[in-house]
Amino acid sequence: MVPHLVPRQLVWLCRRQAACARGASVQHRTWVGASGAPSLLSPWRATVTSPLLCRSSSSTPPSAPKVALTRERYPVTRLPFSVVSEEDLAAFERIVPGRVITDPEVLEASNVDWLRTVRGCSKVLLRPRTSQEVAHILRYCHERNLAVNPQGGNTGMVGGSVPVFDEIILSTALMNKVISFHSVSGTLVCQAGCILEELSRYVEERGFIMPLDLGAKGSCHIGGNVATNAGGLRFLRYGSLHGTVLGLEVVLADGTVLNCLSSLRKDNTGYDLKQLFIGSEGTLGVITAVSIQCPPKPRAVNVAFLGCPGFAEVLQTFSTCKGLLGEILSAYEFMDAECMWLVTRHLRLASPVQESPFYVLIETSGSRAGHDAEKLSDFLDQVLSSGLVTDGTVATDQMKLKALWALRERISEALSRDGYVYKYDLSLPTERLYDLVPDLRARLGSRAKHVVGYGHLGDGNLHLNVTSEAFSPSLLDALEPYVYEWTAGQRGSVSAEHGLGFKKRGVLGYSKPPEALRLMQQLKALLDPKGILNPYKTLPAQA
Amino acid sequence: MVPHLVPRQLVWLCRRQAACARGASVQHRTWVGASGAPSLLSPWRATVTSPLLCRSSSSTPPSAPKVALTRERYPVTRLPFSVVSEEDLAAFERIVPGRVITDPEVLEASNVDWLRTVRGCSKVLLRPRTSQEVAHILRYCHERNLAVNPQGGNTGMVGGSVPVFDEIILSTALMNKVISFHSVSGTLVCQAGCILEELSRYVEERGFIMPLDLGAKGSCHIGGNVATNAGGLRFLRYGSLHGTVLGLEVVLADGTVLNCLSSLRKDNTGYDLKQLFIGSEGTLGVITAVSIQCPPKPRAVNVAFLGCPGFAEVLQTFSTCKGLLGEILSAYEFMDAECMWLVTRHLRLASPVQESPFYVLIETSGSRAGHDAEKLSDFLDQVLSSGLVTDGTVATDQMKLKALWALRERISEALSRDGYVYKYDLSLPTERLYDLVPDLRARLGSRAKHVVGYGHLGDGNLHLNVTSEAFSPSLLDALEPYVYEWTAGQRGSVSAEHGLGFKKRGVLGYSKPPEALRLMQQLKALLDPKGILNPYKTLPAQA
Repeated sequence: MVPHLVPRQLVWLCRRQAACARGASVQHRTWVGASGAPSLLSPWRATVTSPLLCRSSSSTPPSAPKVALTRERYPVTRLPFSVVSEEDLAAFERIVPGRVITDPEVLEASNVDWLRTVRGCSKVLLRPRTSQEVAHILRYCHERNLAVNPQGGNTGMVGGSVPVFDEIILSTALMNKVISFHSVSGTLVCQAGCILEELSRYVEERGFIMPLDLGAKGSCHIGGNVATNAGGLRFLRYGSLHGTVLGLEVVLADGTVLNCLSSLRKDNTGYDLKQLFIGSEGTLGVITAVSIQCPPKPRAVNVAFLGCPGFAEVLQTFSTCKGLLGEILSAYEFMDAECMWLVTRHLRLASPVQESPFYVLIETSGSRAGHDAEKLSDFLDQVLSSGLVTDGTVATDQMKLKALWALRERISEALSRDGYVYKYDLSLPTERLYDLVPDLRARLGSRAKHVVGYGHLGDGNLHLNVTSEAFSPSLLDALEPYVYEWTAGQRGSVSAEHGLGFKKRGVLGYSKPPEALRLMQQLKALLDPKGILNPYKTLPAQA
Repeated sequence: MVPHLVPRQLVWLCRRQAACARGASVQHRTWVGASGAPSLLSPWRATVTSPLLCRSSSSTPPSAPKVALTRERYPVTRLPFSVVSEEDLAAFERIVPGRVITDPEVLEASNVDWLRTVRGCSKVLLRPRTSQEVAHILRYCHERNLAVNPQGGNTGMVGGSVPVFDEIILSTALMNKVISFHSVSGTLVCQAGCILEELSRYVEERGFIMPLDLGAKGSCHIGGNVATNAGGLRFLRYGSLHGTVLGLEVVLADGTVLNCLSSLRKDNTGYDLKQLFIGSEGTLGVITAVSIQCPPKPRAVNVAFLGCPGFAEVLQTFSTCKGLLGEILSAYEFMDAECMWLVTRHLRLASPVQESPFYVLIETSGSRAGHDAEKLSDFLDQVLSSGLVTDGTVATDQMKLKALWALRERISEALSRDGYVYKYDLSLPTERLYDLVPDLRARLGSRAKHVVGYGHLGDGNLHLNVTSEAFSPSLLDALEPYVYEWTAGQRGSVSAEHGLGFKKRGVLGYSKPPEALRLMQQLKALLDPKGILNPYKTLPAQA
């Protein structure tokens, strides 16, 4: 029999619920810690309050080794684009005066990805402020056959956001204005370079939230989110950007401005062109503005952080949770014990619950605190009493919510401090979501420092990560194509939400049939006949 | 001071709530009818229980006049496709033996649209059972340059589902098998010809619901729903098919089978090709199978049917409703007094509430009856006491829910019995959603029998309908382009959910810029270079 524990927050929750239930007679919980259970119920140690760090090169230790050039590490050949000349620089200076960057130190951060796994050698970065400037730049580059690498916050995981060779970096950083916000419908229209966290703050002040949230929120741009079809932490509740994005303004490869920046929830006039660009990773056009539907800000948010004795229990907890929390469930995330070890070790975060093989983070978002607390309390009662969960803590105030979320959101950062990271982002049938992790541990043995699994269980999305001291071709050979073949065997996706970028473009065929690949290549040829937009990305190199 | 009324169902609701609130002390409502108020609180007269009728030609009165041929009523020229020969019929007989229909009486129902406004003169209808048969048919037609009209349930509103001339009708009616259903995730995979209502029944038996619902559910096919990007009654809660459709199998114009029938919630491997076909109205490919995410069946559903004194109050009731019902709100529909007159007159439905200038139907769907009833009760209390609503009734049992929904869902049917119907399906800013209706009444005067407005207020979607005894070119001239210009002036959409089909293809330019139109034409040329798929539809005729 699993002991019933008394996490302090649960008691707090029950009291709050009693206060909110308008005269209802609600029992105070009397879960009692089993005698002899270790004293681990001090969830809010001082170290847990660190805010989420922005993903930027400034968080890189100064001693970090220089990242190898992509063209040297990977077998890739430069395509016959023109090379930027002095005349080109002068032309750019006329289009975006004072915003043509050629200083190698400034370029460094834009040539290297956040994971420090790929490096381009671009000599110029442009910072347009308007879609018209983007149009002028692309018209010029199209005529001159100059390759262009659109770049948002440079937080991508697959090398899609930095040049492979000397592509011109087209940054959306200065396109960071909110264009309009409709305070009744919650429709936000903004430029592509707005930072997600700043947009979140903006709409929250007006009673709404962004329909997406992700660990990189402090740096990533909304245009990049849309271009990569970012999934993230609210996908379970608010769904895909294919559903929440209402309109886009896109500049095509030849400089044509395609204005589909509708604010309408419904519009069936012809083909829904904006969908083409969502998830196309900047290879079909440059997104310059976004219209997006923001859901109302929930009045009550709860986060429960729970320990589970096994993955079977993680799955059963999910089923129970869907039944009892229903429409207020807004996130169901999981992480394994090795993830917890990494965040406690590398980031000095403290675990708020007893050591467990698995941890689950559940978020509820609803309109009525009393109702939500009652649903959550009943759920916790059931999973604790049935042994699906062995320990847990619950938070409702903003600081504690953030601290619990940090345990999950900062895993990626902790991994990057552990060494070289081999990242896999897989969609799999939920019931087999974790099988590959122990399988790989056995396969790799001591060659890997850590093999960890975490992710968006509610969406069937596993983040599988392997670390080693340094990049090792033999370890890579042990991982690939094994991981992709295993995933294809489950009819899964070899990229659930990260996209293909540069590093995964060769593996598209594991998840899509040849007819689909052919049509993608035809679409690329139609929209970007010279192939100047984000070359070497998304689609496999053509024979 | 507005009197507080006591609709019987509200009292019933309060009793139910008391029973569900686990010991909570809930006051029984004491709303009292104002003295002298008419006795109209007998909402469930026997006539209100008629189920929704299927849309089919069988509901057409035998005396209905013959529908004019499209080629005679509209200025349209046949494109130089081949004409079906005896050899072609023999070839089809080899591909789909026994399922090549040439009987003129059987063809009649497939040549005429449900609204009886357009008529083709196809001589052959094919009934494939598999996507391979569809592929064989299209490969043959592509080689022979034969035009093809894909047809689902033939319930479209814009003449998109029937031939304009002699296109071969390719019916999905026999492609009606469920392929798989995952009872944990709620992912349904089925052939395109499955009828929406039958799918609803299938998944409801398994604890889920379809993410879309519409008046034509008894006849429409899921493939047609996806091909036309149907909106409908659950859009407010579950969003667009661009978000809920997980995968599609599509046969392209040349017979290529494009298998993107993924069941994964997330898949960022390359461009999301399925999106191209959602809403393309059969002009880019024939959808043969659909994978769709079904939400869990709500444990509690309530419907409130309310009377409002003006459109301003309809809008304010919506704001109040969003705040107090939050995540359990699943529909917010409105209709004007003329709509109610039409359904009571032509369909003999009875109004459950006092005569009002406007009516609102609100549906809640949630996981806990007691909580939902409490939220709804608080909302009703507020809107009644503030005078936003002057009368109302609430239902939770299945039969009464359906009867309330029928008042809204059968408006379209009532209109078609009123005479010739000029249908407009507009997206507009919510605050101006109804302005065009009184404007048109003044403009048209006695030339129109009725000018009515109803629709999905929560989605900013107005169904504006005008009836006259028979088709009148001068009335049409008074309506068009006036309605489209007015809508464009509001930056609205001239087709929110019905699509463009044949009848609206010329008005695309009111809602999309020339650059978008050009790209749509390029996509059509890429995917269907001979233009054999559903010609004369969606895109304007090229100069």
